Amino acid sequence: MKGIRRLAEHLDISIGTVSRALNGKPDVNEETRRRVLEAAEQLGYVANQSGRALRKGATGVIGFMMQTGPEITGQGDIFFMSVFDGVQTVLARHKLDLVALLCSSEEDPDDYLKRMVARGFADGIILSATRRHDARFEFLARHKIPFITLGRSLTDVDQPWIDLDFEGMAEMSVERLVKAGHRKIGFVWPHGDLNLGYVFVERCREALARHGLTLSEEHIFRTNPNEAGGYAVARSIKASSDPPTAIILVNETLVAGLYRGLDEVGLKPGRDIAVIGRQSPQARFLSPRLTGFDLSLRELGIALAESLLSTMPAYAGLYPQAVRRKLWPMALVEGESG
Amino acid sequence: MKGIRRLAEHLDISIGTVSRALNGKPDVNEETRRRVLEAAEQLGYVANQSGRALRKGATGVIGFMMQTGPEITGQGDIFFMSVFDGVQTVLARHKLDLVALLCSSEEDPDDYLKRMVARGFADGIILSATRRHDARFEFLARHKIPFITLGRSLTDVDQPWIDLDFEGMAEMSVERLVKAGHRKIGFVWPHGDLNLGYVFVERCREALARHGLTLSEEHIFRTNPNEAGGYAVARSIKASSDPPTAIILVNETLVAGLYRGLDEVGLKPGRDIAVIGRQSPQARFLSPRLTGFDLSLRELGIALAESLLSTMPAYAGLYPQAVRRKLWPMALVEGESG
Repeated sequence: MKGIRRLAEHLDISIGTVSRALNGKPDVNEETRRRVLEAAEQLGYVANQSGRALRKGATGVIGFMMQTGPEITGQGDIFFMSVFDGVQTVLARHKLDLVALLCSSEEDPDDYLKRMVARGFADGIILSATRRHDARFEFLARHKIPFITLGRSLTDVDQPWIDLDFEGMAEMSVERLVKAGHRKIGFVWPHGDLNLGYVFVERCREALARHGLTLSEEHIFRTNPNEAGGYAVARSIKASSDPPTAIILVNETLVAGLYRGLDEVGLKPGRDIAVIGRQSPQARFLSPRLTGFDLSLRELGIALAESLLSTMPAYAGLYPQAVRRKLWPMALVEGESG
Repeated sequence: MKGIRRLAEHLDISIGTVSRALNGKPDVNEETRRRVLEAAEQLGYVANQSGRALRKGATGVIGFMMQTGPEITGQGDIFFMSVFDGVQTVLARHKLDLVALLCSSEEDPDDYLKRMVARGFADGIILSATRRHDARFEFLARHKIPFITLGRSLTDVDQPWIDLDFEGMAEMSVERLVKAGHRKIGFVWPHGDLNLGYVFVERCREALARHGLTLSEEHIFRTNPNEAGGYAVARSIKASSDPPTAIILVNETLVAGLYRGLDEVGLKPGRDIAVIGRQSPQARFLSPRLTGFDLSLRELGIALAESLLSTMPAYAGLYPQAVRRKLWPMALVEGESG
């Protein structure tokens, strides 16, 4: 790999200086070091040492990349911590440690990942918040860094993945609501370019079509994936000239806010509007009880970790049965809301 | 530092092999590498390279160590994610990244930290979940790794710290309850050996003593810091032969479970038992409205990061006004519960 030479030419600095800067030697001034590190990021340079550590499994660390920020985790997290717990259970068997690579919503996820890889952080990586097109997949594949994705993407580099069965959730939700007489069914579209939004709405459309129903654009509610987002959806429903009689939430973080918002505009879940969502520790406290999809986040974490390890030479032999690609089933827990 | 020589002697392996194993060279077999890394952990060896990176600020990463596990984060997190957000705001100014060092509750925190430091992870570290006596402080000080603690300890190595003002919370809660006529006031003791439990109960005792009241041992409820823990406290209160008429919760994660538990045993907060707790995104949905202490977690994160950077030579000049040690104030938000 000629990366360091290219970097040196790009910066018009000697290879020796670039090398010393990358390796944290004290005899490089701070300004030069920063220029080198920034260029290394831009050019997608992976330090030899880091690359070697990653390929040989020498860091002892698995990185789990997740998005953070006021709009995403501003009111806490009710998903990843439990997944981490499952991942850690597996890693502990091998004296591997888990670190959460926290990518702020103000960062470009591709740049962030390149930087973390350049820093030589992890033997393997779990990616979440997969986008419709996701350059991170190609980057990691190119650098031969073992990884698994929690979520799919149109980008496919033959990496292992586990994704929640959003198709199954869409099918069951639509069938249940249509059977109960609903003809105007709304959906909440999670933020940004996440792949799951496309998967979910596409399958909802198909399921509706089988009943001769169409999904109206005005019944797709775009919002942030947090309580405030759910709250805003309630307001939008109330303000709609042709409101849906039922709503499906693909994201577990929206439910509590939606309930609060509906309460304030005088709509009762299960009576005035059917609500199907995702179960969570918080949802247990809602009244009327939520009808929603549930899964074991800990089991999901265990499967993610075992699948990742099965792609790493040092551990592959231990996990011959690990899942390679799987739609993770969710179970419908019937409540009173829809 | 003679660490590598000592390691080689301990293992009866050549210094060259130990060095190659530590540096991830491909010509060391996997079994030897593991033995070396394990011994490095046991002996508290900090690799030269890592040590250098840490001292020179070359990793570009700040680590935030937090505890995870079913009893702690099994139902999610409503504290750290928002603190992370504030920390990231500051780090982004300097192109530094934040990683969460996730220490499972099944791990010894001292061993975990040693391992992460041996892995040469971070330029600086933020420690949370500080214990009554906390060997991590001494370890980091000995290795000259910049750090700040979110929380105090009887261990004191003159490091910067920020802690929530549990003393102020104890004072105000007791005064408020005594003024309202309560004489039997209960406290929930958070898990394990966390320093905050001692600080909080001590100050409560003092505040009660000023009114000629004593804190009965049976009114100290020990429980896990999660919803299930809060739920269990409600059951214990109901089962008590001499129940308290008021209860103070130092931990924000207990409140929702306590409410649910009290509801099931027929006790209404604010009517049958006074409850003073900590505000959180979840607490906003409780009825009757919680009386509890609030703070900006994001601001706390900003202060932690600025204070940490002020101890690091590369950034110290930028933060001459940073807090060195501070009790972080919390504001009482009056609700209907107590």
